[in-house]
Amino acid sequence: MDAEIICVGTELLLGDIVNTNAAFLARELANIGINVYFQSVVGDNQKRLSAALSTAFSRVDLVLLTGGLGPTYDDLTKETVAKYFNRQMYMDETSLNKIRGFFASIQKPMTKNNEKQAQIPEGAVIFPNEWGTAPGIALSDGKKTAVMLPGPPHEMMSMFNTFVVPYLLNLSDKKIISRTINLFGIGESNVEDMLKPLMAFAENPTIAPYAKVGEVILRITAQAPTRNDAILLIDPVISQITDLLGPYIYGIDVPNIQYVLVKELIARNIKISVAESCTGGLISEQVTQIPGASAIFECGVCAYANDIKRKLLNVQEATLEKYGAVSEQTAMEMASGVRDVAGSDIGISTTGIAGPGGGTELKPVGTVFVGISSKAGCSVHRLKLGSGKSDDRERIRILAAKHALFKALKTLHEVY
Amino acid sequence: MDAEIICVGTELLLGDIVNTNAAFLARELANIGINVYFQSVVGDNQKRLSAALSTAFSRVDLVLLTGGLGPTYDDLTKETVAKYFNRQMYMDETSLNKIRGFFASIQKPMTKNNEKQAQIPEGAVIFPNEWGTAPGIALSDGKKTAVMLPGPPHEMMSMFNTFVVPYLLNLSDKKIISRTINLFGIGESNVEDMLKPLMAFAENPTIAPYAKVGEVILRITAQAPTRNDAILLIDPVISQITDLLGPYIYGIDVPNIQYVLVKELIARNIKISVAESCTGGLISEQVTQIPGASAIFECGVCAYANDIKRKLLNVQEATLEKYGAVSEQTAMEMASGVRDVAGSDIGISTTGIAGPGGGTELKPVGTVFVGISSKAGCSVHRLKLGSGKSDDRERIRILAAKHALFKALKTLHEVY
Repeated sequence: MDAEIICVGTELLLGDIVNTNAAFLARELANIGINVYFQSVVGDNQKRLSAALSTAFSRVDLVLLTGGLGPTYDDLTKETVAKYFNRQMYMDETSLNKIRGFFASIQKPMTKNNEKQAQIPEGAVIFPNEWGTAPGIALSDGKKTAVMLPGPPHEMMSMFNTFVVPYLLNLSDKKIISRTINLFGIGESNVEDMLKPLMAFAENPTIAPYAKVGEVILRITAQAPTRNDAILLIDPVISQITDLLGPYIYGIDVPNIQYVLVKELIARNIKISVAESCTGGLISEQVTQIPGASAIFECGVCAYANDIKRKLLNVQEATLEKYGAVSEQTAMEMASGVRDVAGSDIGISTTGIAGPGGGTELKPVGTVFVGISSKAGCSVHRLKLGSGKSDDRERIRILAAKHALFKALKTLHEVY
Repeated sequence: MDAEIICVGTELLLGDIVNTNAAFLARELANIGINVYFQSVVGDNQKRLSAALSTAFSRVDLVLLTGGLGPTYDDLTKETVAKYFNRQMYMDETSLNKIRGFFASIQKPMTKNNEKQAQIPEGAVIFPNEWGTAPGIALSDGKKTAVMLPGPPHEMMSMFNTFVVPYLLNLSDKKIISRTINLFGIGESNVEDMLKPLMAFAENPTIAPYAKVGEVILRITAQAPTRNDAILLIDPVISQITDLLGPYIYGIDVPNIQYVLVKELIARNIKISVAESCTGGLISEQVTQIPGASAIFECGVCAYANDIKRKLLNVQEATLEKYGAVSEQTAMEMASGVRDVAGSDIGISTTGIAGPGGGTELKPVGTVFVGISSKAGCSVHRLKLGSGKSDDRERIRILAAKHALFKALKTLHEVY
């Protein structure tokens, strides 16, 4: 089954917020065998939304819409879709009571305009919103189906997983399954070069590489009558790719490096701590994103000032004076220092120049040292990250964090 | 002038990456007076891209495309656009030499397929790519114009700012200018309720509210023959809104709270330090995102374990035993502890239960204490964040960090 996604909202159209909803829906739809060939974004404008809806329904039978279900005057999605299906609106008392209850639970007054969110097109399926106020709605004439969900991502995602997936599984026929292989430390064109013989003949499953900051992700997609048949087509291809690119692979069907690292640390009960300078807390933040991280994460010290590197991490005055804060020696003392303070098994450190200022001829912007301390000793990796341009700060920080997490994962595999 | 944005890439369509390019382009186009009414995403498929391009050009004269300019066989944007304009491709030697130079500079071998990136449609304007390999291209027949940029965001953004803005300014006529007011601590429907009298009559400028996690942003947009005329229309509206919603406003035309906080700290030479438990490094990470933060950020301690709270932040054993790690008293000692250790002017702390586990009846998931220590003493704010559902971890962390940054900003205004 094919679908299109229409995200409604002037804030998306003007770029005030990034459209994470489309990415989420596309990924989840693929997982249940629904192909998305077009996504679009329209503003809070009934005429344009109506046109986008007609175009979408001229190509596919299923359209998912997000946004425009809220309380304000410019929220028009329900009304526009109801018009397409030629349905009247009615006030749904159950939804209205839910909205009243929501405001009571957060102890805030419910303004009159919120009642609009309980207006429902006749004949609709209602998906209750346990996470906010606007309910989700499916409207169908037996051939064409529109599914409408609220715009706030946490409401939309929760409602989709809980109510919409079961609803859609009843509509779908053939299964399309994808699995992803995540690689670090190799570029996209190198990956494609190495996989050329494999990719040239790949029709079912197909192999598609794409690049993410510092990473390459391979998506292997198969079509089959059942989920199991599709997986049987994919698995041998994964084996072949693993043979060719093994050392670069950090995970299969995983969201990111920190997820793999935290899960493996938990499984082996190995504890970690982090001393960050140029990454400024990013590594700690990424590790603690993962539920359960508290079992293996002892502490993170974000030591920008030299004084703090000495006081909290026991970096030697002499080291800082002789080699500087951005040096192999300081990275080493930071990693072993935080490991000692935290009493953890592995200590990670970063020190470098993220820019835009602070670069020198010997240590230009993008110079980063990543230190890893473990029971096997301490190692430091000198990196040159970014393109050397002045707007690279965030990219250098993200790349440095990924390098550190990847090295920690390698250390976990090799030492523990 | 009106434009549409088409983002090309199966990885976008399948939701493997989030489409930040569309948001960036829409925002930047609005700033130079170009309206975007539709955005769309299509996969690496010549037929569908061709259809999307024709649809877009049936509505507008300017289309911006990102992605599909790379070296791999499924990168087809240039070829598809060239076909629309009925142009042949040629090998551009200058671009080819640039690509060779890029690979030499990063000391990696240039695989043969990279040469494809130097293939240019006849009569095109070439935007050199100083940040990667694929050059950008503008193709025009005098009436319709297509601008193509590479997909990797840092390349696309740098090229857009450097080369495409001047190119587009030559095409545009009327100016549309937007200014944004950022509010924290008030909900979207409350904002709209308070601004109803103002919004009802607003035609030029218009006032549009929208919600972001924990925040409301008001966009005021005016059209006028010149940029200055538009700003003269907007400024009185900003004054009226400031009168009504002053205490909730943390900035005008600013990207986020941490930006405002860091800039104000730098301006007043006030130093800050952070002790984080439930936010896990997020506050440190957000503060150090801002270039120049090293001048005012002394250190961040991410103290998950009780032992670390004692050792690095001098939280008393007795406090942890009597009140627990998630308590007003611990938050207070963490804030003053990190302020002492760092020797900073302001100390911020967070301790709470981000979930999914760890909640109790008295302290359910979402309970967070934010502590602020300054020369005026120490204050703690007890918060109940999130909707109480199990998938709220990241949202609770983000909200807690925003509360802490907002309180720090208020403290800076009141105390220093």
